Amino acid sequence: MSETTNRQFKLAQRPVGMVKRSDFDFVEAPVPEIGDGEVLIRTEYLSLDPAMRGWMNEGKSYIPPVGIGEVMRAGVAGMVVASNHPKFAEGDSVVGMLGVQDYAVSNGKGLTKVDPKLAPLPVYLGTLGMPGMTAYFGILEVGELKSGDTVVVSGAAGAVGQVVGQIAKIKGCRVVGIAGGADKCRYVTEELGFDAAIDYKSEDVKKALRQHCPKGIDIYFDNVGGEILEAALSNLAMHARIVICGAISQYNNTTPVKGPSNYLALLVNRASMKGMVVFDYAPRYAEAMTAMAGWMREGKLKSREDISQGLENFPETLLKLFKGENTGKLVLKVASG
Amino acid sequence: MSETTNRQFKLAQRPVGMVKRSDFDFVEAPVPEIGDGEVLIRTEYLSLDPAMRGWMNEGKSYIPPVGIGEVMRAGVAGMVVASNHPKFAEGDSVVGMLGVQDYAVSNGKGLTKVDPKLAPLPVYLGTLGMPGMTAYFGILEVGELKSGDTVVVSGAAGAVGQVVGQIAKIKGCRVVGIAGGADKCRYVTEELGFDAAIDYKSEDVKKALRQHCPKGIDIYFDNVGGEILEAALSNLAMHARIVICGAISQYNNTTPVKGPSNYLALLVNRASMKGMVVFDYAPRYAEAMTAMAGWMREGKLKSREDISQGLENFPETLLKLFKGENTGKLVLKVASG
Repeated sequence: MSETTNRQFKLAQRPVGMVKRSDFDFVEAPVPEIGDGEVLIRTEYLSLDPAMRGWMNEGKSYIPPVGIGEVMRAGVAGMVVASNHPKFAEGDSVVGMLGVQDYAVSNGKGLTKVDPKLAPLPVYLGTLGMPGMTAYFGILEVGELKSGDTVVVSGAAGAVGQVVGQIAKIKGCRVVGIAGGADKCRYVTEELGFDAAIDYKSEDVKKALRQHCPKGIDIYFDNVGGEILEAALSNLAMHARIVICGAISQYNNTTPVKGPSNYLALLVNRASMKGMVVFDYAPRYAEAMTAMAGWMREGKLKSREDISQGLENFPETLLKLFKGENTGKLVLKVASG
Repeated sequence: MSETTNRQFKLAQRPVGMVKRSDFDFVEAPVPEIGDGEVLIRTEYLSLDPAMRGWMNEGKSYIPPVGIGEVMRAGVAGMVVASNHPKFAEGDSVVGMLGVQDYAVSNGKGLTKVDPKLAPLPVYLGTLGMPGMTAYFGILEVGELKSGDTVVVSGAAGAVGQVVGQIAKIKGCRVVGIAGGADKCRYVTEELGFDAAIDYKSEDVKKALRQHCPKGIDIYFDNVGGEILEAALSNLAMHARIVICGAISQYNNTTPVKGPSNYLALLVNRASMKGMVVFDYAPRYAEAMTAMAGWMREGKLKSREDISQGLENFPETLLKLFKGENTGKLVLKVASG
């Protein structure tokens, strides 16, 4: 990377099925100049999130899709390298939605200063970033978690799942994680302290849930959808709450999404299924950050990041999410601070 | 019918697909004798409810299934013809789950005295019975109805739907009913005062909902499931509530129930889908009865019953529900009071 060149991944076309490199144009542009009130940020770490797949689709969703020809939307942790903004100085570490590129210009809106001495920069894209906020408000507010609940989380070794399960443990719940492969299952039980883990690649999830949740599931936090959602619906306790956070198993479908055929379990169990979008909780992020940073200091909340290298590897790294190849928060290291 | 003969429909086998006459044994038994603390009731009206289809299936649900060889479970309005129970006297009108038969013995548990001077007996199986209770608690409690909401109800001309829509109108909502056929649509708009009706047999429900609910649906009260549930999910307002009361379109399936493939609309719209079973509200039935009877007196809540004749016609009459042939609460007249 030259210091005068800004490499960018722009959306070239709307993907059909699994996203691929040719869905992007990888281009070079000059590093932009900044005007009054603007900040230039150099990307150090790029956040890779399942939600990015949805942003590439046409049509109404919770935020507008990325336009064809636009820089692909992504969360970034980086450093201010030039500033005409009173609130940001050269050398500041910041996070924001700055896109898949080496350099970005911001007017300061949505840009947040972070302290790299408190936690490594990638943590601000994970446990102290959007995934952490999603976990915090999803399990506590949407899931209405109570001490003693049996909590099941899918994508348990992922950026959101690992935090959901640990918060539930902190709050005195029984926690069962669902993840793909023995390593991830070991990670959530041995390193994170979940009570049990189910390997969906080698186990019958429905049967395993029955075994690990003898009183039924009080909260199912769903990151994956598909058959695992159905298995959870088959094992609900009365008045169970299902938090719909995502459906990564369905994002690259070329056929219609598989709806849960046993959704009438909601009726039988007087249960609810509720969708969430983390942005709604923005006014309360500070509250969550304080709580989470406190738990991290006390050693109760661990955070793992899965770090790949090089902006040029963005499309292949993004695919790791959908292939289930990451453990913990997946980030791409783009430059050193 | 002889006054010494008790005709009964007993469950002969678990139905596969659409229920049929041969799923029952139609038998004759002597009219039973009553013991101490017991009451003998002669059935006058039999309640026909979509839920009956579920009770015929094997397996765990919100109540145990009807056993093979047992009298088919059904709500009944009838008259006490003999009593050894201090709370019931000969000539009293009562309702209870007394089964598909001419005569039933009860120990008084679950038997409720009703006043035929306040409302005709069939109304106690409909608007002032389980369907009315379902509508009342479903829309007000589970749906968390607020004045000004846009409320959509499917099965709008059915026993539950007709009450749901009228309560929503009383509470100051915009109400759109979905029903099959022009007659039912006319009934809910012209007689019941719904703001609009959609005929799912001749209209594109998704498109029609978009037209009739320009601000989106705040509450969707679902009695039918299937494609109509999907159409509603496609038209939700932010923070919408879906009340899952039933799924009559799916009860006679021989293939798995169709889950809503667009359930991620819950996420996009921060919406919820919640199941209900009316029995949970039993301690509050009196509250609902008082409110509903008051609205009926004031002419704000109308009640229509669809009355077929003759216990011997039970299987064919039950089928009318699944063929969508009834308007209002479907009952079978068995004997005169």
